[in-house]
Amino acid sequence: MTAENIAAVLHGIDDLRVEPFPLSEAPGKGCVRVAIKAVGICGSDVHMLKKGRIAHFVVEKPMVTGHESAGEVVAVGEGVTSLQVGDRVALEPGIPCCSSRHMREGRYNLDPSIEFFATPPVHGSLATFVDHPAEWCYPLPSGLSFEEGALCEPLSVGVHACRRGGVCPGKRVAIMGAGPIGLVALLSARAFGADAIAITDLKASNLSLATRLGADAAVLIESQQQAPQDVADALLAANAGIGFDIVIDCAGFQQSMQVALRSCVSGGKVVLVGMGQETMALNLIEACIREVDILGCFRYCNTYPLCLSLLSSGRVDLKPLITHRFGFSEEEVLQGFDTAFRADATGAIKVMFNL
Amino acid sequence: MTAENIAAVLHGIDDLRVEPFPLSEAPGKGCVRVAIKAVGICGSDVHMLKKGRIAHFVVEKPMVTGHESAGEVVAVGEGVTSLQVGDRVALEPGIPCCSSRHMREGRYNLDPSIEFFATPPVHGSLATFVDHPAEWCYPLPSGLSFEEGALCEPLSVGVHACRRGGVCPGKRVAIMGAGPIGLVALLSARAFGADAIAITDLKASNLSLATRLGADAAVLIESQQQAPQDVADALLAANAGIGFDIVIDCAGFQQSMQVALRSCVSGGKVVLVGMGQETMALNLIEACIREVDILGCFRYCNTYPLCLSLLSSGRVDLKPLITHRFGFSEEEVLQGFDTAFRADATGAIKVMFNL
Amino acid sequence: MTAENIAAVLHGIDDLRVEPFPLSEAPGKGCVRVAIKAVGICGSDVHMLKKGRIAHFVVEKPMVTGHESAGEVVAVGEGVTSLQVGDRVALEPGIPCCSSRHMREGRYNLDPSIEFFATPPVHGSLATFVDHPAEWCYPLPSGLSFEEGALCEPLSVGVHACRRGGVCPGKRVAIMGAGPIGLVALLSARAFGADAIAITDLKASNLSLATRLGADAAVLIESQQQAPQDVADALLAANAGIGFDIVIDCAGFQQSMQVALRSCVSGGKVVLVGMGQETMALNLIEACIREVDILGCFRYCNTYPLCLSLLSSGRVDLKPLITHRFGFSEEEVLQGFDTAFRADATGAIKVMFNL
Amino acid sequence: MTAENIAAVLHGIDDLRVEPFPLSEAPGKGCVRVAIKAVGICGSDVHMLKKGRIAHFVVEKPMVTGHESAGEVVAVGEGVTSLQVGDRVALEPGIPCCSSRHMREGRYNLDPSIEFFATPPVHGSLATFVDHPAEWCYPLPSGLSFEEGALCEPLSVGVHACRRGGVCPGKRVAIMGAGPIGLVALLSARAFGADAIAITDLKASNLSLATRLGADAAVLIESQQQAPQDVADALLAANAGIGFDIVIDCAGFQQSMQVALRSCVSGGKVVLVGMGQETMALNLIEACIREVDILGCFRYCNTYPLCLSLLSSGRVDLKPLITHRFGFSEEEVLQGFDTAFRADATGAIKVMFNL
Repeated sequence: MTAENIAAVLHGIDDLRVEPFPLSEAPGKGCVRVAIKAVGICGSDVHMLKKGRIAHFVVEKPMVTGHESAGEVVAVGEGVTSLQVGDRVALEPGIPCCSSRHMREGRYNLDPSIEFFATPPVHGSLATFVDHPAEWCYPLPSGLSFEEGALCEPLSVGVHACRRGGVCPGKRVAIMGAGPIGLVALLSARAFGADAIAITDLKASNLSLATRLGADAAVLIESQQQAPQDVADALLAANAGIGFDIVIDCAGFQQSMQVALRSCVSGGKVVLVGMGQETMALNLIEACIREVDILGCFRYCNTYPLCLSLLSSGRVDLKPLITHRFGFSEEEVLQGFDTAFRADATGAIKVMFNL
Repeated sequence: MTAENIAAVLHGIDDLRVEPFPLSEAPGKGCVRVAIKAVGICGSDVHMLKKGRIAHFVVEKPMVTGHESAGEVVAVGEGVTSLQVGDRVALEPGIPCCSSRHMREGRYNLDPSIEFFATPPVHGSLATFVDHPAEWCYPLPSGLSFEEGALCEPLSVGVHACRRGGVCPGKRVAIMGAGPIGLVALLSARAFGADAIAITDLKASNLSLATRLGADAAVLIESQQQAPQDVADALLAANAGIGFDIVIDCAGFQQSMQVALRSCVSGGKVVLVGMGQETMALNLIEACIREVDILGCFRYCNTYPLCLSLLSSGRVDLKPLITHRFGFSEEEVLQGFDTAFRADATGAIKVMFNL
Repeated sequence: MTAENIAAVLHGIDDLRVEPFPLSEAPGKGCVRVAIKAVGICGSDVHMLKKGRIAHFVVEKPMVTGHESAGEVVAVGEGVTSLQVGDRVALEPGIPCCSSRHMREGRYNLDPSIEFFATPPVHGSLATFVDHPAEWCYPLPSGLSFEEGALCEPLSVGVHACRRGGVCPGKRVAIMGAGPIGLVALLSARAFGADAIAITDLKASNLSLATRLGADAAVLIESQQQAPQDVADALLAANAGIGFDIVIDCAGFQQSMQVALRSCVSGGKVVLVGMGQETMALNLIEACIREVDILGCFRYCNTYPLCLSLLSSGRVDLKPLITHRFGFSEEEVLQGFDTAFRADATGAIKVMFNL
Repeated sequence: MTAENIAAVLHGIDDLRVEPFPLSEAPGKGCVRVAIKAVGICGSDVHMLKKGRIAHFVVEKPMVTGHESAGEVVAVGEGVTSLQVGDRVALEPGIPCCSSRHMREGRYNLDPSIEFFATPPVHGSLATFVDHPAEWCYPLPSGLSFEEGALCEPLSVGVHACRRGGVCPGKRVAIMGAGPIGLVALLSARAFGADAIAITDLKASNLSLATRLGADAAVLIESQQQAPQDVADALLAANAGIGFDIVIDCAGFQQSMQVALRSCVSGGKVVLVGMGQETMALNLIEACIREVDILGCFRYCNTYPLCLSLLSSGRVDLKPLITHRFGFSEEEVLQGFDTAFRADATGAIKVMFNL
């Protein structure tokens, strides 16, 4: 039955097709087959559609898109004991190699051989069915929707950034960027007990949502050309003149990093999550002599159980982030991606497919 | 008696005079008066002489130079119980404020109100006598010379960099720059148990000393224009193709930082010690997606007891770093600074004054 | 004027007198004189009254009692710039030595020379006026009462325990004991984002308050003789059979520690706060082979700014802990101590004096 | 050919037989077949022979003994690319489950489902051939013997203890027990850069070896009944009266733990490695109020690459630990175990089998 799988396949730049994508008869050893029920669109999915690549990952042959997903187990492979048919699960999209040094040292996100949904040449999960190792599927607590299960993926990014930066009570946090990642960083920082959270963005509507979600201060950036010191001054003014212990840069531009370094206290941490711009001219010495650390973030590890706990306990509520919903016909899929791509016009934060 | 103090006073750019510099009759409460016996010249002292400033610290009125020093206690102020006349001591040059947040949290080097020798407007220690709080003077173990006591200061920088980077057995270390700071970083990394240490420099003579001091590999950089990837390739080749867990950049130029970021393993740390260049264009995203952290270093804290232990146990030997010695007449002091300034020609690593 | 100071002076076992206790004419250098407005009674104060000692601290001459206090600045000594007359402040009761190794390394609570209110022979703060270093007085944010300022002291104990144990989202916490310290640990663990918190006690009324304050599970211990494995089983059952990542033992008895070690997950932490019993027979090997760490807590450091922030933001509300209030006549003071001493009968959690 | 495997099989208490132990025709997927060349005897192997159990691990059916081993690859299973026939390897004896939480968090030694050589019911490696996952076999650097490869196992215990305790320059270390584990802890602490190392034992000959291997001070314990405070006093006297930052207890008796807690500085760490005694009566409060942490150790993780590096660089030399060598006939195997069992009489530290 499940051989009749349908998937959203990226064939090239601006060439996304919803078409048959055959699976094997049954899931392999240690794997389950999941009937996908909800998939969110991430900025990287849109970028891949529009550019055909991200960094050194290039789409060279047709690839299924999508990596924020949840669904229901419909078959289990040999040796699977942790799940059974009917279980509702969130899928962690990366499968690291068990014998890599990074896996053994507890940072499996850094394993260079990790296989991650929709990172070429690995297929993604925007499909009616996906086979996935049971050990990377997490049962949804009752009360959580498939959409919330899918959103564990972006939430994981926020959680990982907070862990890297050491967010906890007593820390003041600034977040550069109030898009989907900035907002999950905000919600995570709140759950981690931050004293105060300020956030910046170029769009007033994003800031207004951030404020609704619990930001203590919101600073509108005039343009990408506004002087970093001006933005930093505004941020500090919004925080009673006190610097931030942790700045999470979810934009990743020269401007945002300059603001981050200037608004961070001596001995503080700047966590770099966004990847807006490859090369940046920065005054690192200024950070250096104040021992402001710059900590990179790449995806996440060991976050799914926590994300499910945060969501089911109500410490984090991601539902307000979902601005648009679509079905899974080709027309709707294209419309969904277009809605995400034109976020400035549509006001999209998180676009969700319901399968 | 000690009122007849003589000091090396910086009056302005290239205007250094050895002249009377009166002290009060007796050291104040909690302080001791130290007859200075050995003072080393640091690159920052030379920079201050030649430029009249470092970063935002500007020489605006005459200031005693020097901050790497050791001597003998000749008088003790009220309330001093830890030291007595005749004690031989190394002087930690920075006096932080006891009530600062950074002091209480164990990072007193970050206290913005710290008073540090020869950082304007605070006077330094190249003088026949200096008054200093007893709590910042450390008795020299028997067998250690005043020169070694003075060299606890630069060694502290190496020790702090190793601590920040987490150097320990199992870690491979690369050091950018084999000048005095690069060499103390090398000796520190050795003492902290690093598996392998590679070092780079523009001067073959520096590398040759580094090799004598225990570097496992030395890479000569052709020029400051050599492509960073070329240098990184040479570094990796010198380390059996394996990346470095920790890179300590004692140069602080765009080139060295680019080499550092490229030769560091995923999840590794780049420790920035040198301050060669304020603004640098860097590909931070490349570091970010491999979670290579950039950690700044500013001076040090809690290092003097360890430095004295390293030196007296023989785990570190700093004597080979002393290339030139001078007395304390004005002529000799000027000659000493000139020798340090023209290091390319003189081969100077560490110039030492014996008073 | 302030020479007419009145204090609650402990003269010996069960001999507490409210009597004149002269102060100098004015506060010394760096100090302020505080008109005390609220003082809480701690179990250690009661213990000192009833036993004349705690551990090796013995009351050998008359000593002012009390150490949880807040008040209003009425005079400032020479050199004080951070505070002025009229400021409302919480008093951190311990004054460490600035030059101790522990201070410099960020753990000033471990300084053996620390001078701490009401720890013999240092006088406490249950008095109309107290002189205290300005740097250890923290301005109360507007909206916080003196009582809340005084309660920063016990709250600090809870905060320190959570920091030692690494409480954060993703961690399950068990707390042994629901007295005042167990309750502040509970409120702190909540603020630090714990996933789930279970608590034990011998008194149902304490557990009922704990549940009102946010405990997810409460386990009544039958007696101090109940088998530890039984209590541990009940604790685990109350937590869906899952072990605890962090167990905070606010009782400090052999029974509670045995329960703690058995209910803690492999790789977890047991934080020992209470000091019920000096010598305990424990199966340490069982903890050892699961790498359950045992971490002691002694008072706290660097907690006051955070406590004030937790209270003023509403993340922690300590008001429900105050069960009894008294004035400052000798009769009322004796009554207050008696109420605290007979907590089993009176139901006292926190007894507060308003001066 | 390799079907003719011979192994040392433990059939019950004091019933060890060297007998045929058939293997499958070829190693399984991901595994290699190793011709074992050197196996060391560990105290736990002897304990298992004499008692038939360790803790809750009981020998219920015949089990191959031995877990410190190295050998040469003679066949590779499907999918193995990292090793080939002829490679010389050290075998890490524990195989954790890749999907366990502890594995993913970097502490795979805590995985309760780990399969570890000679821990019932898992067979050990004292056999002519052993099949083992390629990913848990580490190539021996040239210059290292099979014996040194086998000794990576006990060395790992020392390394893990040093990591847990945070041994590094600036730290003073005391080690309880100078048997094989105490000695590898000593050699590890030296390699990690400890300032000073003191060691205790009941046997003068062990202490004399410890001194030859680099201990700075050796303290002979009179008997297991000697008062802990006396031993602690002697230890401190041997260290210039200064307490130890880290105490590694390789004995694990009430006496040794009492000595450890008393000789450790405030804020220091006691690392518990030995398992001499299950239940101990300890004054934990004394440790608690000085924040002396008690950290358990169970085996090790992520140590083999470091051990091979320490040995091949010469930072650690384990050869002096090998006091006796035997061949692999049943007679010699029994003699080897007897030599290890009667260490008091034979002076055995490490008994090694060469196959």
